[in-house]
Amino acid sequence: MSESCAIVVMGVSGRMGRMLVQTVQDNPKTHLCGAVERPGHDWIGRDLGAALGGAATGVVVTDDPAEALEGADAVIDFTAPAATVALAKLAADKGVVHVIGTTGMTEADIAAVDAVTDRGVVVRAGNMSLGVNLLVQLTKQVAAALDEDYDIEVIEGHHRHKVDAPSGTALMLGQAAADGRGVDLDEASDRGRDGITGPRERGKIGFHAIRGGDIIGEHDVLFAADGERITLRHVASDRSVFARGAVKAALWGRGKESGHYSMLDVLGLG
Amino acid sequence: MSESCAIVVMGVSGRMGRMLVQTVQDNPKTHLCGAVERPGHDWIGRDLGAALGGAATGVVVTDDPAEALEGADAVIDFTAPAATVALAKLAADKGVVHVIGTTGMTEADIAAVDAVTDRGVVVRAGNMSLGVNLLVQLTKQVAAALDEDYDIEVIEGHHRHKVDAPSGTALMLGQAAADGRGVDLDEASDRGRDGITGPRERGKIGFHAIRGGDIIGEHDVLFAADGERITLRHVASDRSVFARGAVKAALWGRGKESGHYSMLDVLGLG
Amino acid sequence: MSESCAIVVMGVSGRMGRMLVQTVQDNPKTHLCGAVERPGHDWIGRDLGAALGGAATGVVVTDDPAEALEGADAVIDFTAPAATVALAKLAADKGVVHVIGTTGMTEADIAAVDAVTDRGVVVRAGNMSLGVNLLVQLTKQVAAALDEDYDIEVIEGHHRHKVDAPSGTALMLGQAAADGRGVDLDEASDRGRDGITGPRERGKIGFHAIRGGDIIGEHDVLFAADGERITLRHVASDRSVFARGAVKAALWGRGKESGHYSMLDVLGLG
Amino acid sequence: MSESCAIVVMGVSGRMGRMLVQTVQDNPKTHLCGAVERPGHDWIGRDLGAALGGAATGVVVTDDPAEALEGADAVIDFTAPAATVALAKLAADKGVVHVIGTTGMTEADIAAVDAVTDRGVVVRAGNMSLGVNLLVQLTKQVAAALDEDYDIEVIEGHHRHKVDAPSGTALMLGQAAADGRGVDLDEASDRGRDGITGPRERGKIGFHAIRGGDIIGEHDVLFAADGERITLRHVASDRSVFARGAVKAALWGRGKESGHYSMLDVLGLG
Repeated sequence: MSESCAIVVMGVSGRMGRMLVQTVQDNPKTHLCGAVERPGHDWIGRDLGAALGGAATGVVVTDDPAEALEGADAVIDFTAPAATVALAKLAADKGVVHVIGTTGMTEADIAAVDAVTDRGVVVRAGNMSLGVNLLVQLTKQVAAALDEDYDIEVIEGHHRHKVDAPSGTALMLGQAAADGRGVDLDEASDRGRDGITGPRERGKIGFHAIRGGDIIGEHDVLFAADGERITLRHVASDRSVFARGAVKAALWGRGKESGHYSMLDVLGLG
Repeated sequence: MSESCAIVVMGVSGRMGRMLVQTVQDNPKTHLCGAVERPGHDWIGRDLGAALGGAATGVVVTDDPAEALEGADAVIDFTAPAATVALAKLAADKGVVHVIGTTGMTEADIAAVDAVTDRGVVVRAGNMSLGVNLLVQLTKQVAAALDEDYDIEVIEGHHRHKVDAPSGTALMLGQAAADGRGVDLDEASDRGRDGITGPRERGKIGFHAIRGGDIIGEHDVLFAADGERITLRHVASDRSVFARGAVKAALWGRGKESGHYSMLDVLGLG
Repeated sequence: MSESCAIVVMGVSGRMGRMLVQTVQDNPKTHLCGAVERPGHDWIGRDLGAALGGAATGVVVTDDPAEALEGADAVIDFTAPAATVALAKLAADKGVVHVIGTTGMTEADIAAVDAVTDRGVVVRAGNMSLGVNLLVQLTKQVAAALDEDYDIEVIEGHHRHKVDAPSGTALMLGQAAADGRGVDLDEASDRGRDGITGPRERGKIGFHAIRGGDIIGEHDVLFAADGERITLRHVASDRSVFARGAVKAALWGRGKESGHYSMLDVLGLG
Repeated sequence: MSESCAIVVMGVSGRMGRMLVQTVQDNPKTHLCGAVERPGHDWIGRDLGAALGGAATGVVVTDDPAEALEGADAVIDFTAPAATVALAKLAADKGVVHVIGTTGMTEADIAAVDAVTDRGVVVRAGNMSLGVNLLVQLTKQVAAALDEDYDIEVIEGHHRHKVDAPSGTALMLGQAAADGRGVDLDEASDRGRDGITGPRERGKIGFHAIRGGDIIGEHDVLFAADGERITLRHVASDRSVFARGAVKAALWGRGKESGHYSMLDVLGLG
């Protein structure tokens, strides 16, 4: 495994795709071997470097994932649930590590990804930063240490282009809080609070999704009791923190046994 | 008007009621002349001072507002919409200034209060602190100065006992933002954001209601654009700030012409 | 030890003293047996209840700690360093648990207190809330998990009457961060940053003391790297949280072996 | 003035310099006509585009400002005080608008710049974002509306590379607060609070400079009273917001009468 890791990036024209391309190119242990966009996109068939306004890279943008994955070690995928589910099967069949940063996946989507992990290596995370994954651990720990006198609320903020609410990371934090308390998140969740709600129900975990401007990603987990409050906060100030995490996951996944892994596994915090 | 102002407090056994009683008693320009609780409450018929665990005050708690308002200059009312609407008519008929801090009132409730202001003096505010009312003015001004490149979100936090969401103050701030922009708040409001929402719609004003512990009242108005954000924040750290505002409103209302006033009028910020 | 714990409160006329008296009286496992103020204070010789404007309590305010400690189980002391050092010897000699919440103590002051713990039980903490002590543990843990790419800053806020900066709690958090990193806090501290400072020195731990209004106590520990930040925050919203912790420490200290304990010991987090 | 504005950028290899180059190139009303670095820098004599790793631009990096300013309309300068003072005279003599974003300037530096504005156009600002300049106006207004019961603290955060504290923007906000109150900032300033300070002095304006990670620029102005607090906050999330403001200032300055202008003039908020 001393060779450079050959990586395919999905959705290369988007904001996250461009960042991933840059990060893969900058990392001395990785190189870009494929670039995918959706059928009909006007970058299809063009050299990626030229399409990005720079020097040619030798990688031509394609709308055919199967072609792009040929000979790749890993594929990094921050796209949409349907595309991700389709890609999971393909990556597993080709023995390519599938790094999934896609958000908004339903339980059915996740089950469909799970179904390929008998033979494929999947690393999937709502958020790929070191800090967020550390926050997940702290949330679980604090929720276990404090009782239900401490009301839990998860508040997240993202840019105006985000289409799902709450964020995948917020749900991951909520799950950690529920795990720490030993309760079921679906039953404990209090989402979309509005109108005549009555007093807050003891034990609930509230969620709030702020949207505005170019906020990259901010997450607060609040534990509020009579007399005191603890807040655990993460702020992402540069999207590259996610891209670096994704590339780290791709490198980590090479040669691993098939399975469905998380960033906690990659970071050794699991 | 050099005489001490005789004030009735509604709902004297509650957290806000107790604070109002204390504030009226502490203010050298006012004295407590009546104390009301709901029928069946076990304080009815007892001396208020004794019921509060202190020395006798000579004011007996009653469940009959008409009796309590006899001879009063003003009544301070942080109760519930139905009780407030009923009291408005009574206060107007008796020539008693009605200071309303009740939240969760519908448009119909407000119209019913309005109907008495041909003959009565009503001072009504979602929030009676100097700081909040200043924040309302700033919000209007900033919303007018910035265009829709700046996404507006109102985020509020209150204790776990609060039954309505968002708070009356949050709605007041949202209204100020809508006024500043010259849009209709009902059309612009984005409440209870949850699920697959699509990208944030330009021009919307979002609302979020955090509930937990003993938070007295915190309000943020966020203006978020690409590259920068402005936040206007108010934090109430002591409930007495509302009680002092209410007593100030009662003193201000004595001798005014009939009408429906706000705290902006009282504070001279209108 | 099934009997009610007899507690003396130092500085009963101050804001914290009054809160302690109330909390001792409200706790079914404790009762107030002594009340101390400084010589010359006009409460000396008066019944404490009457001095506080309520019913008589049978406890007369004294300026003689030796007299007050006679027959007491514990003394709670949120006063000033010199008074606390003097009291430590007295309490140890009389076998009375000494709960110390005094801030601004120098190393010499602490050494003087230490000198009595061969025979006395001392519980000393910069902050007696459950939440703060949990935050201390989290801070140590996060500082150990992250390397010096993450710059650490401790930011605290307190009311305008506070005379020392940074707060004892802030220093406790800074110490926890230094311990987690395995560095010496005195060498790592960066206090009073102002002027032409040059770039931030790697590994430093910064401190900031905001003062204003009636802020009870707010503490942030910031870990800031390129691309992301984690903040651990504690907000005290009611001074009673410290008083409850102090009473808990008094109860815990009864019958313990002599020694110098912290709130982590009391809370079982040590 | 329908022609494209010819702009020189100082310090092109730095983080801010690169951002300015990009912004000038992206704006349809401007073009880059000169690029300056310090003597001895290895970019001197190279084409700027090539030095930046892209296509050639035809602009060669020079260490001679006089050469670069030949034929220019404006020069944008986020460098260091000594360099800025020297450049001011040169720009005035050549009739080139001098846009100054340099921070850490002393009163003597500012006086030296002032001395050239009998014949030159200078636009100087501690911060060139729309939001910050709006915040300055709000700060002045709130400080005028509230009395000294409201303690003012200015808290700013910047990346670890910043060499001066507090930031120029923080000082600008402090000046606005002092102006609003009608006091002298030098007398009111409370900087570097640390140690046994005694109670907060009424009327003081405190400053705090947080340093860590890659924070672009965050500023809070806190007004804290008993019972409530107002905070006015600005967060810069993308350095381009300053570059866009600087380019806007360059365009605005063309053809103006000689004088020392601020961003409030440029934005029409003055």
